[in-house]
Amino acid sequence: MTTESVANSVQLPPLDNPHERAAVGAELQVLLQDLIDLSLIGKQLHWSVVGPVARSVHLFIDELVGEWRELADVVAERAVTLGSVPDGQSSAVAAGSRVEPVVVRSMPDHAVVWELGRRAAAVAERIRARLGSIGAADLVTQDVLIKVVGTLEKQQWLLRVQLGEKA
Amino acid sequence: MTTESVANSVQLPPLDNPHERAAVGAELQVLLQDLIDLSLIGKQLHWSVVGPVARSVHLFIDELVGEWRELADVVAERAVTLGSVPDGQSSAVAAGSRVEPVVVRSMPDHAVVWELGRRAAAVAERIRARLGSIGAADLVTQDVLIKVVGTLEKQQWLLRVQLGEKA
Amino acid sequence: MTTESVANSVQLPPLDNPHERAAVGAELQVLLQDLIDLSLIGKQLHWSVVGPVARSVHLFIDELVGEWRELADVVAERAVTLGSVPDGQSSAVAAGSRVEPVVVRSMPDHAVVWELGRRAAAVAERIRARLGSIGAADLVTQDVLIKVVGTLEKQQWLLRVQLGEKA
Amino acid sequence: MTTESVANSVQLPPLDNPHERAAVGAELQVLLQDLIDLSLIGKQLHWSVVGPVARSVHLFIDELVGEWRELADVVAERAVTLGSVPDGQSSAVAAGSRVEPVVVRSMPDHAVVWELGRRAAAVAERIRARLGSIGAADLVTQDVLIKVVGTLEKQQWLLRVQLGEKA
Amino acid sequence: MTTESVANSVQLPPLDNPHERAAVGAELQVLLQDLIDLSLIGKQLHWSVVGPVARSVHLFIDELVGEWRELADVVAERAVTLGSVPDGQSSAVAAGSRVEPVVVRSMPDHAVVWELGRRAAAVAERIRARLGSIGAADLVTQDVLIKVVGTLEKQQWLLRVQLGEKA
Amino acid sequence: MTTESVANSVQLPPLDNPHERAAVGAELQVLLQDLIDLSLIGKQLHWSVVGPVARSVHLFIDELVGEWRELADVVAERAVTLGSVPDGQSSAVAAGSRVEPVVVRSMPDHAVVWELGRRAAAVAERIRARLGSIGAADLVTQDVLIKVVGTLEKQQWLLRVQLGEKA
Amino acid sequence: MTTESVANSVQLPPLDNPHERAAVGAELQVLLQDLIDLSLIGKQLHWSVVGPVARSVHLFIDELVGEWRELADVVAERAVTLGSVPDGQSSAVAAGSRVEPVVVRSMPDHAVVWELGRRAAAVAERIRARLGSIGAADLVTQDVLIKVVGTLEKQQWLLRVQLGEKA
Amino acid sequence: MTTESVANSVQLPPLDNPHERAAVGAELQVLLQDLIDLSLIGKQLHWSVVGPVARSVHLFIDELVGEWRELADVVAERAVTLGSVPDGQSSAVAAGSRVEPVVVRSMPDHAVVWELGRRAAAVAERIRARLGSIGAADLVTQDVLIKVVGTLEKQQWLLRVQLGEKA
Amino acid sequence: MTTESVANSVQLPPLDNPHERAAVGAELQVLLQDLIDLSLIGKQLHWSVVGPVARSVHLFIDELVGEWRELADVVAERAVTLGSVPDGQSSAVAAGSRVEPVVVRSMPDHAVVWELGRRAAAVAERIRARLGSIGAADLVTQDVLIKVVGTLEKQQWLLRVQLGEKA
Amino acid sequence: MTTESVANSVQLPPLDNPHERAAVGAELQVLLQDLIDLSLIGKQLHWSVVGPVARSVHLFIDELVGEWRELADVVAERAVTLGSVPDGQSSAVAAGSRVEPVVVRSMPDHAVVWELGRRAAAVAERIRARLGSIGAADLVTQDVLIKVVGTLEKQQWLLRVQLGEKA
Amino acid sequence: MTTESVANSVQLPPLDNPHERAAVGAELQVLLQDLIDLSLIGKQLHWSVVGPVARSVHLFIDELVGEWRELADVVAERAVTLGSVPDGQSSAVAAGSRVEPVVVRSMPDHAVVWELGRRAAAVAERIRARLGSIGAADLVTQDVLIKVVGTLEKQQWLLRVQLGEKA
Amino acid sequence: MTTESVANSVQLPPLDNPHERAAVGAELQVLLQDLIDLSLIGKQLHWSVVGPVARSVHLFIDELVGEWRELADVVAERAVTLGSVPDGQSSAVAAGSRVEPVVVRSMPDHAVVWELGRRAAAVAERIRARLGSIGAADLVTQDVLIKVVGTLEKQQWLLRVQLGEKA
Repeated sequence: MTTESVANSVQLPPLDNPHERAAVGAELQVLLQDLIDLSLIGKQLHWSVVGPVARSVHLFIDELVGEWRELADVVAERAVTLGSVPDGQSSAVAAGSRVEPVVVRSMPDHAVVWELGRRAAAVAERIRARLGSIGAADLVTQDVLIKVVGTLEKQQWLLRVQLGEKA
Repeated sequence: MTTESVANSVQLPPLDNPHERAAVGAELQVLLQDLIDLSLIGKQLHWSVVGPVARSVHLFIDELVGEWRELADVVAERAVTLGSVPDGQSSAVAAGSRVEPVVVRSMPDHAVVWELGRRAAAVAERIRARLGSIGAADLVTQDVLIKVVGTLEKQQWLLRVQLGEKA
Repeated sequence: MTTESVANSVQLPPLDNPHERAAVGAELQVLLQDLIDLSLIGKQLHWSVVGPVARSVHLFIDELVGEWRELADVVAERAVTLGSVPDGQSSAVAAGSRVEPVVVRSMPDHAVVWELGRRAAAVAERIRARLGSIGAADLVTQDVLIKVVGTLEKQQWLLRVQLGEKA
Repeated sequence: MTTESVANSVQLPPLDNPHERAAVGAELQVLLQDLIDLSLIGKQLHWSVVGPVARSVHLFIDELVGEWRELADVVAERAVTLGSVPDGQSSAVAAGSRVEPVVVRSMPDHAVVWELGRRAAAVAERIRARLGSIGAADLVTQDVLIKVVGTLEKQQWLLRVQLGEKA
Repeated sequence: MTTESVANSVQLPPLDNPHERAAVGAELQVLLQDLIDLSLIGKQLHWSVVGPVARSVHLFIDELVGEWRELADVVAERAVTLGSVPDGQSSAVAAGSRVEPVVVRSMPDHAVVWELGRRAAAVAERIRARLGSIGAADLVTQDVLIKVVGTLEKQQWLLRVQLGEKA
Repeated sequence: MTTESVANSVQLPPLDNPHERAAVGAELQVLLQDLIDLSLIGKQLHWSVVGPVARSVHLFIDELVGEWRELADVVAERAVTLGSVPDGQSSAVAAGSRVEPVVVRSMPDHAVVWELGRRAAAVAERIRARLGSIGAADLVTQDVLIKVVGTLEKQQWLLRVQLGEKA
Repeated sequence: MTTESVANSVQLPPLDNPHERAAVGAELQVLLQDLIDLSLIGKQLHWSVVGPVARSVHLFIDELVGEWRELADVVAERAVTLGSVPDGQSSAVAAGSRVEPVVVRSMPDHAVVWELGRRAAAVAERIRARLGSIGAADLVTQDVLIKVVGTLEKQQWLLRVQLGEKA
Repeated sequence: MTTESVANSVQLPPLDNPHERAAVGAELQVLLQDLIDLSLIGKQLHWSVVGPVARSVHLFIDELVGEWRELADVVAERAVTLGSVPDGQSSAVAAGSRVEPVVVRSMPDHAVVWELGRRAAAVAERIRARLGSIGAADLVTQDVLIKVVGTLEKQQWLLRVQLGEKA
Repeated sequence: MTTESVANSVQLPPLDNPHERAAVGAELQVLLQDLIDLSLIGKQLHWSVVGPVARSVHLFIDELVGEWRELADVVAERAVTLGSVPDGQSSAVAAGSRVEPVVVRSMPDHAVVWELGRRAAAVAERIRARLGSIGAADLVTQDVLIKVVGTLEKQQWLLRVQLGEKA
Repeated sequence: MTTESVANSVQLPPLDNPHERAAVGAELQVLLQDLIDLSLIGKQLHWSVVGPVARSVHLFIDELVGEWRELADVVAERAVTLGSVPDGQSSAVAAGSRVEPVVVRSMPDHAVVWELGRRAAAVAERIRARLGSIGAADLVTQDVLIKVVGTLEKQQWLLRVQLGEKA
Repeated sequence: MTTESVANSVQLPPLDNPHERAAVGAELQVLLQDLIDLSLIGKQLHWSVVGPVARSVHLFIDELVGEWRELADVVAERAVTLGSVPDGQSSAVAAGSRVEPVVVRSMPDHAVVWELGRRAAAVAERIRARLGSIGAADLVTQDVLIKVVGTLEKQQWLLRVQLGEKA
Repeated sequence: MTTESVANSVQLPPLDNPHERAAVGAELQVLLQDLIDLSLIGKQLHWSVVGPVARSVHLFIDELVGEWRELADVVAERAVTLGSVPDGQSSAVAAGSRVEPVVVRSMPDHAVVWELGRRAAAVAERIRARLGSIGAADLVTQDVLIKVVGTLEKQQWLLRVQLGEKA
């Protein structure tokens, strides 16, 4: 028995058809790129925030970045579990991410909060729109994405409250 | 750009319509009140349990109360994430909770176990009945509630076995 | 020897007369209800605070709530040690607590600090007024209450400084 | 009130009908037996692996065994929560498990990885096929099983990559 | 300057007169002997408890013994701080302790609880009776003793509730 | 030099003759199967215990199971160190273990304690009878078995005291 | 409502009259300066101790300094809680502290112990003399000071025993 | 089946005859009393040591006392495992221990070391003399005693080196 | 005094002239982009490594990525300390990094090690070439870069040894 | 051989000439006094800060004070390693420190940040100016000072960003 | 009483005659030298291992070295407890150790495993041959050596399995 | 591509010429041997120290040995990073180390301190003399050596102060 033939016999998880597998893989790659981009933008703002609550925002961003990195890892590992190798390198992220970059300069704390809140909300909203179709193909991946949406929406709230009085 | 306008532009998670958002918010508020009430009743019995296994029950209740407080926090934060501020103060809990109060006196350990088991079961059963309709509106909230039901049903088992021989 | 007779022979701590024991028990029950109410109001504001320093206040309130829950436990356990079972359930707290409820809506961070500061101060002041008479009846209970007052007054300071420039 | 009557009144979680409850219980028992069998086979290979990467595989298997034991506990506790006592003893596992035993002798590291990968994949695949019907009966049990499938499929990936170059 | 003369010049804490210093020292020595005796009796019962809740009592006693050892250390160190060396050896404890020994044989769990509860209560009561006179001589020692009484009375409650239904 | 020849030159520990090596290996295999069986029966009863002290027993069993798993690992690793690969899979355990299975149903707490106590005692007694002959062949293996007997006999005591008043 | 008016309405703790408040504040400021001075002198000797037990003294001083810094923080925070801002800067400490400086050179270990012992004793004695009058004004501050005296007197003992044979 | 009859059927570990069991139990009881006495004398000297290395000795004694308490627990639990309840109360220790008491007064550090060293050595020597006969009766108890001797002899060395230059 | 004028008066660290400050900032920005790129490529290979030692490489890469992220943070914070805001977002990294991307597919373990080793070496070599000129401008930045080079060169060794037999 | 002669033979680290040794010692003493002064001023502002972000500043100052105390210890220990005993007592700090005191009253949070930022910058700048000459005499001391400057400049940045928008 | 005479009176552990004491001491010294040599050779190979599993071997060796250092400490401390001072310095180890040195160059991972396995086996075998005679002189030392043999034989197994397929 | 050719392409760090690389490697090898020798001599004295402060010295030496082992590891890993495999085995250390051995017998505590102090000072001094030339070849290695010198010089101080009164 050769190593090659061995490798073939530990099969991939049985999604219903190749089309579904490819579709789920494509979703996960885009989400991975969005999450990596969020984490890079987060660090960027971690270094450039200024203003009276800069320290609080500086520390809070590190928590967000930690969550985004963790989610990115979970998403990428789900993709390779299903047989796709997504691209999470800088060029691919720059090309594929749907998250807007920020300007490179010192930025007031309230603007930082607003920039992050908008981006987290946009990523959450895009995934939420796909939960149904993903669930039809693979409940395990859907469960992963529900966690991603739940986390991003909670972040959205924690950022939103720093901006004013409305719930 | 004013702070006001900024606050408006970090949108709430996109549930399908205002009716659904209000319905989900209302469910979460009642569940919050039930969970807070369970935690207060739990502490009450923690202080008033007597009998041969009082120490074991006294310690176990603190674990239950810890879980109820944690679940209450998760439920309340999901509500505000969706744009509702639920009321978790004593008057609102006293008025809105569907959990029965206990009598205020020393209570034998087996009775304490029975009182807590019935109440945890009742709260679990009420949420379970709503899982379907909540899931139709918002899979993330449904996921939160599945965790709440799962935790309460496990507690139910752990309490039930202390009462006799049937599985 | 029956269990009943055994129970009778482990006596209560020897306060000087039944009147004193009842009076101390009554004080502890009211204080318990105030502390539980503070902890519920604290969580309420933890969920509804908004504004530039909302995150800092959100985190700080969880420390305060932790201290109030801990103090409530100590107070309730002192009461049952002395032979009273105080009522810490939602209806009793709603009826017996002397702490004002807050309005249920998003609340600006500075207002949250002010609301909590006023309530912590009021509870501290009411206990301080009773330290002398409690001490005459029971030095151990007095020692518990001195800790409660000291903790609340330190919280008062930590809240007060967030409101302006006067010491 | 007797202890007996007390025991009866803390009801089981309200699955829709007795047939469903039995069916879910039966699924959980078989899964429990598969997971216990995986954990015993895992330890067997932990002791008998040889070859250049034997140490790495030896350590990795202990992580897998830890996860299988943990999942077995969760599955068994869900079963008793629903009113079934599954059989997890050696004879029942030997009779009911659908996992193939391994030969008892020193085994090269790559073969160990292949044997474990195939077995983890087979168990995952069998549960995945039941997710839909279980979900129709009980969303909480379905949520437990989604976690089991997700964990086993991730293990499948981590084992598969040790066997060769294909994703 | 010799070591002798140096030693003389770091004075003892300034209690008001030699009589008071001796009286406080004598109180602390007797309390030390009571606490050491409680800790030895506690271990004795830790080893000899039998019955349905033997395990819970066995574990609880180790917590009590830990607290008694800690209190004994605090009491002895306060005595030497004030210039007395109390005697905590077995003969002195056997002769000076006012705590009754227990019979040496297996003892049912409820009897163990009762024996410990009575002895903890008796020690607490004896110290409580001296709090006033000690406080007049030395507020620091009084503060130590208030902690001892508070701890013993809380233990009394935790033991008492294991014996029956009265608060 | 080939890998094969290398493997041959790291010799096994020098027991005096092949007969002794086989005999020690056979003892270790049977003991391994008994210990694995104890651990499976322990979990079985962890899930099915009911009654007033069910929680205490439920938690205690997890400590016992942890010790049995740890001892099984030590025993199996001593066997492979000496050149035998013992069989610890479900069929081998079902066939070779001398530990009686338990009935599969809810079981009262005192019966659970009795069932475990009898089984732990029986396993301990069987090993104790072999300590002398094992020691003559290999002092290191004897030392391992003395630890196993010591642990099982301590468990026997901890279980026995939960059943009644005799030492 | 302005921030100014808000600040005024979270009142200071209700000591009986302005005179008492000022007197308590003055006591706390002097004590703070003494404790800071002790901590600076402690570090000075930590760096300059020589002799056979220099290492033991070097390490012990760091524990003392840790306790003095902690007490200084408690004392300063009690002062600001009562409405005074004490001065803990180097010039104020140099001017206001009643603790003697030490010579700046290598100092033998026994002399270091003697120097610290005398200074800790002197600070303790000064506070002890004020416990009564402070207690009449504010029991919470008295409780803080009893802790300070108790800690300093225990340190006195631990230093004294290193100097010779008298208790 | 009654609880009584159940208790009888979990047998004691099978020592060869009643005489041996009694002899082993008697040895363990005397050793227990020696170890408890060592721990009480150790605390006595912990409180009364003075001199240049008093702090080092003070801290070291607490480690010794911790080891003696731990060994006493192991010895007592081995005794009850074998069916004896030894007496570890103050009167029994005062009467049965073969360890000499120390004088009650401040004691120079080197004398403290010498007093402890002699006593630890004497206890070790007495047990060493019994290792052979105990081993003939019960290898598990012998193993416990070898640990006790090994620990005491290591303490002897650690104390001996503090007294002078010979190895 | 306005916030603006305040901000101006906390000056930047005094590097000798604007040219030097800009040059150091430019170096730090390029290094930051290289380090971020290494961390993204590292994760990419963490997900796509296959082969017999894939698990070991998978785990090792996470340690490397952790170090690269930590170094990136230190480098970026040194840049902003000196008054530059470097750009660490995906487009800037894709454009500015001098680290080659890897192909997106499963990659054999030894190739992964080789790819990472080459890239770490190249980044180290580029910084090493600048140590002298940076040190002439700012010793603190030079010290940061010496740490970066030292870390990368150690990684180079740890990767290199996995590729063959030469030191 | 006497202790005196022994002491002489463990030589000081070999700086090139007495003049250099004295110069380095003098630098370290002044820096020590500056760092102690920073730590005292830091605590002063920790107690007196008021305003909306008072809590965040209050907590941040404790981190700064911890770093200043740690650096002071490192600096003082380097001085005594080189044979100087620097003076770190309150009078010497008051006289020798080049750090300006602050006014003693409640101070708004932004002013506190500004006061600390200016002082940290001034101390950093003074050390930076001496790095070259110190390095010529002793590279080890230079390395210590580079760490001090690096830490102070990072603090400068973290404070500066709280004051406004410029990098 | 002089210190000299004190030192004499804390006797050595009572081995039966001077010849036995010397023989045991000599055995322990040789074993100490072997264990130190193993630890130095282990580090040597930790630094020079190369090849595909170099990282795994590099990490594993550090665990082995940690165990060898720990065993060496236990062996040396047993020797001095018995009155011998063994020589563990480099020249004595070089002269007395029976462990072969390795060549100084990069070494392939499988060769490293083989070199370590042979040496650990040889040391184990030499001690095993002396267990009987040591046990006749001193059971405590025998117990120490049984632990050493057991540890080395387990290491032998863990190394052996990395070399090929035989058990 | 063969493994050989791969190994060649991950280059060594770019020191300027082969002569420099060899010179730096030779320095590191000698330093490694000195540090290993210090660690062996340290353990030797850890086992043989006697006298009043023997315990303090015994514990302190273990800290020193821990630091020397850690530094040896750093030095050896820097050497292999630069392409040399240094020899750290017992014969090479015995031959190459410049540290004097100590006599093998019990040694008074003050002499132990003196012996260690002289040896640590000598090693530090030899490295200090090479800092300049090493720095000219490789700033990273110089940075490693500055840490070694700094650590050894601090140890020198900590040992020196135990010997007498001069700074």
